[in-house]
Amino acid sequence: MTVPNKHILLMDGPDSKGLIYHVTGVLFRHNLNIIHNDEYVSPSGQFFMRTEFEGVFDNDALLDELKTTLPESANQSAITFRLNPKRKKNIVVMVTKEHHCLGELLIRYAFDELDADILAVISNYNVLQPLVSKFGIPFHYVSHEGKTREEHEESILRTLTIYEPEYLVLAKYMRVLTPGFVNHFPNRIVNIHHSFLPAFIGANPYRQAYDRGVKIIGATAHFVNNNLDEGPIIAQNVKEVDHRQTATDMATEGRDVEKIVLSQALKLVFNDRVFISGNRAIVL
Amino acid sequence: MTVPNKHILLMDGPDSKGLIYHVTGVLFRHNLNIIHNDEYVSPSGQFFMRTEFEGVFDNDALLDELKTTLPESANQSAITFRLNPKRKKNIVVMVTKEHHCLGELLIRYAFDELDADILAVISNYNVLQPLVSKFGIPFHYVSHEGKTREEHEESILRTLTIYEPEYLVLAKYMRVLTPGFVNHFPNRIVNIHHSFLPAFIGANPYRQAYDRGVKIIGATAHFVNNNLDEGPIIAQNVKEVDHRQTATDMATEGRDVEKIVLSQALKLVFNDRVFISGNRAIVL
Amino acid sequence: MTVPNKHILLMDGPDSKGLIYHVTGVLFRHNLNIIHNDEYVSPSGQFFMRTEFEGVFDNDALLDELKTTLPESANQSAITFRLNPKRKKNIVVMVTKEHHCLGELLIRYAFDELDADILAVISNYNVLQPLVSKFGIPFHYVSHEGKTREEHEESILRTLTIYEPEYLVLAKYMRVLTPGFVNHFPNRIVNIHHSFLPAFIGANPYRQAYDRGVKIIGATAHFVNNNLDEGPIIAQNVKEVDHRQTATDMATEGRDVEKIVLSQALKLVFNDRVFISGNRAIVL
Amino acid sequence: MTVPNKHILLMDGPDSKGLIYHVTGVLFRHNLNIIHNDEYVSPSGQFFMRTEFEGVFDNDALLDELKTTLPESANQSAITFRLNPKRKKNIVVMVTKEHHCLGELLIRYAFDELDADILAVISNYNVLQPLVSKFGIPFHYVSHEGKTREEHEESILRTLTIYEPEYLVLAKYMRVLTPGFVNHFPNRIVNIHHSFLPAFIGANPYRQAYDRGVKIIGATAHFVNNNLDEGPIIAQNVKEVDHRQTATDMATEGRDVEKIVLSQALKLVFNDRVFISGNRAIVL
Repeated sequence: MTVPNKHILLMDGPDSKGLIYHVTGVLFRHNLNIIHNDEYVSPSGQFFMRTEFEGVFDNDALLDELKTTLPESANQSAITFRLNPKRKKNIVVMVTKEHHCLGELLIRYAFDELDADILAVISNYNVLQPLVSKFGIPFHYVSHEGKTREEHEESILRTLTIYEPEYLVLAKYMRVLTPGFVNHFPNRIVNIHHSFLPAFIGANPYRQAYDRGVKIIGATAHFVNNNLDEGPIIAQNVKEVDHRQTATDMATEGRDVEKIVLSQALKLVFNDRVFISGNRAIVL
Repeated sequence: MTVPNKHILLMDGPDSKGLIYHVTGVLFRHNLNIIHNDEYVSPSGQFFMRTEFEGVFDNDALLDELKTTLPESANQSAITFRLNPKRKKNIVVMVTKEHHCLGELLIRYAFDELDADILAVISNYNVLQPLVSKFGIPFHYVSHEGKTREEHEESILRTLTIYEPEYLVLAKYMRVLTPGFVNHFPNRIVNIHHSFLPAFIGANPYRQAYDRGVKIIGATAHFVNNNLDEGPIIAQNVKEVDHRQTATDMATEGRDVEKIVLSQALKLVFNDRVFISGNRAIVL
Repeated sequence: MTVPNKHILLMDGPDSKGLIYHVTGVLFRHNLNIIHNDEYVSPSGQFFMRTEFEGVFDNDALLDELKTTLPESANQSAITFRLNPKRKKNIVVMVTKEHHCLGELLIRYAFDELDADILAVISNYNVLQPLVSKFGIPFHYVSHEGKTREEHEESILRTLTIYEPEYLVLAKYMRVLTPGFVNHFPNRIVNIHHSFLPAFIGANPYRQAYDRGVKIIGATAHFVNNNLDEGPIIAQNVKEVDHRQTATDMATEGRDVEKIVLSQALKLVFNDRVFISGNRAIVL
Repeated sequence: MTVPNKHILLMDGPDSKGLIYHVTGVLFRHNLNIIHNDEYVSPSGQFFMRTEFEGVFDNDALLDELKTTLPESANQSAITFRLNPKRKKNIVVMVTKEHHCLGELLIRYAFDELDADILAVISNYNVLQPLVSKFGIPFHYVSHEGKTREEHEESILRTLTIYEPEYLVLAKYMRVLTPGFVNHFPNRIVNIHHSFLPAFIGANPYRQAYDRGVKIIGATAHFVNNNLDEGPIIAQNVKEVDHRQTATDMATEGRDVEKIVLSQALKLVFNDRVFISGNRAIVL
């Protein structure tokens, strides 16, 4: 298989001497041009590297050479390589009733700024159907009324089977997902939480923020794992508030932060810039 | 008693019609000039007003008129007035081993920018004694070694008796104070906590922040009450971090935030701009 | 005329003793309830007050009493009162080719968050027509091709005659308006400039920012007067950048700042919170 | 010559394939351990790399091998290598009358947080002498009274001859330096300017900011070249202000930004993290 254009090589594993030298050497010998290279070694000795390059090469041969010609000191079996062409991701967006994050994604998508194709929107309410329709995207209303949590998630999973998205984006989807659901999409669900995590986990974070009298509110985009609001944090941002703002005012102001933070996080994820290391996100 | 120059009138109590009209009227009739007036009504109907004015007047007569000529609808017994000349506060600073907040306060004090006189510095270690000496301020080394918490606080209280400060400033004093101690200084102890509260309450917040993989760290200046790190928040600020920063790096970067936030909070407190309402600080 | 609900009283003029007392007294006697009151005296002695209140009253009688019962020391003829019911404003949006600010306004409008009704969108290109159509708003394509600047503006003015908007919003309208045009809408045109003014006035500010190697970029929402990019600033915000970002990258990142700043500024303007004082905007 | 411990290799020149591979290979063969590596290619094709590594090696032999074994495609004569042990820099600080930046540097220096040794402080006034004395650092009062600019600078240069500093830090030195002076220290003078450059070049930037009614003020640390306030920008930061703040208030608030920005910029410079490329600073 011969592949042209831009590519992204992701490597991670235990650090050892010569890893950068090794990878840049293989790419040099294949006459590939490195556009950008970034690496990181964690305090616990884990090595992460993201290399963006261009040129024409045989995908399997390149991966094979990368794996088999590692320096002797390297722990070959613990090192993983992923090689992706630089391209848009396929996603499905899940929402409840709030429009601001969805609206942001739709406008970006409509003008080709999302680095992803929105295959469909799924909601447990139908209030956002008119907005989604404006953009010609399928909208699936999957009500949770009269269903157990598992039945409801089963319905959503059936709908997702149509699209087979690479990522699920929870753009203010206000229901907790079960581990059974989350396990279908390991490190492939991105959520926006309307607080500066880990402050104000759970419901009504702006009410919590008001009650605590904080002077700054925030929003957090993170991967979803099986602990509520505790997955790896991708991006956060904040905004000053003061005592004059009610919980409702904070929610209104906070929406501007939420939608921008979600968009920024998705840009990082869709460009293969995020490694997950335990509960931390490494952004290269 | 006749008083010249600038004065600050603080009023709070249940809201009712005509309160601003009442106060501005009394000041107008006394020929006093309002320099700045700010008021706030909380969602629960509590009224707060801070009025900065200048002119010559009889202090007791003014307070008396303010209290006795309130509009009929006002709940007179629940309304409090405080009338202070605008002047520097007397403070004692408590520290442990870290110099950055103390250094900031000393430099500001040396150049008359603190809106307070530092009467003394008390520490449970003697490492900061040389710094304090440079500025000619008494330094009291009150070790906690071999003492119970109560005995140690008793020693500190004895030292404080010398100075009778209006405010205690905990500029990285790294020991928890008992309710017995705190009760001596109701709403008169200001602490700087090295996290964006309520995230990372307790010990080692930068380690906690690193482990959680946050993208923003912060600091919080707050009044101390009897729940650790839960008193009314006066000021907060934040700084972006990334995965490259270790917990130690975050602590280093965080110090710049801590010292500026503490200084900003003290400026508000020492200028009588902070009301306390339950667990919230109203800054007018 | 009898008017219910919420109202906003705006007052400005030379400062003198008793102005707050006067206004709050008139409102008190009319049994009107002040929800929020904010005032400011400039260093040059100009007084500004914005009072939000509710209740039922005779509009003309109230204004008359406010004007005729001012304290003796007040310069009655130099003081102006404006009394508006709190309501949505009517606006027309002008754009060129960029969608991000317009998209933001349309989504907010569609969900009733704009505090304004968008009567129409006017553009010198037709590229944004499909977006505007999704939201059922009239789109006027008024090309500047083959026209002098004056002829083009004349065409726009004719279109505006249909709508008689209270405000014009330049949501990335990339042509300079002549004084002849601007004079039709004194202090009623709001523009978003894609730099942190007064840095990088004029064309290609992100290119200028890149060339200068700045570490922070920004956006500025301001009223339009007859000096390019020099009208009163309503709101500004910024974003950190680094040397890795090209001028194009900065433009992409900057769009997120631009659209949020424009929305924030419009919220202030549409809620009658902005006074203009010379070249400065006073936001109460 | 054999050198242990941490070292920093700085490389810059025209980009070509294999440069990272080349350097990492030479270090690998010398059994040196890369701690951190960062590189950047400018849009105009200039390559910059900063490599922090540790190990024992022969300095001259390493530099020689780096230079002579470059890939064929590389433009050898245009590529420069600099190899520094990681160590504190020697600096002289120049001030006028303001204490805040100097105080910040002195406190950091006293607690070994500056990554530099302050050899001396030079001032054209003697007001800061008492502060400097507290820290046991030589203070040179070099008045400009009754001297031409050239005579004054000549006196300063004579004083500097005693210390031969690697960097001059202008910590609010309020006189313009002549090209004759600046040329003695190419890219070795760091200045803090009290505005968000390029806004408000020249004198009284806070007055200018007030007059323009900006909503954000800032500070800029930059290298000094022969165009006033136009050298490469190293670091910037900002702070929100509002119309209530006078030019004096802005100056007071701005000081907190100035001193932190200057410290951050110095940390970058003293750790050899800043390349200069034309009028831009590349921070790796």
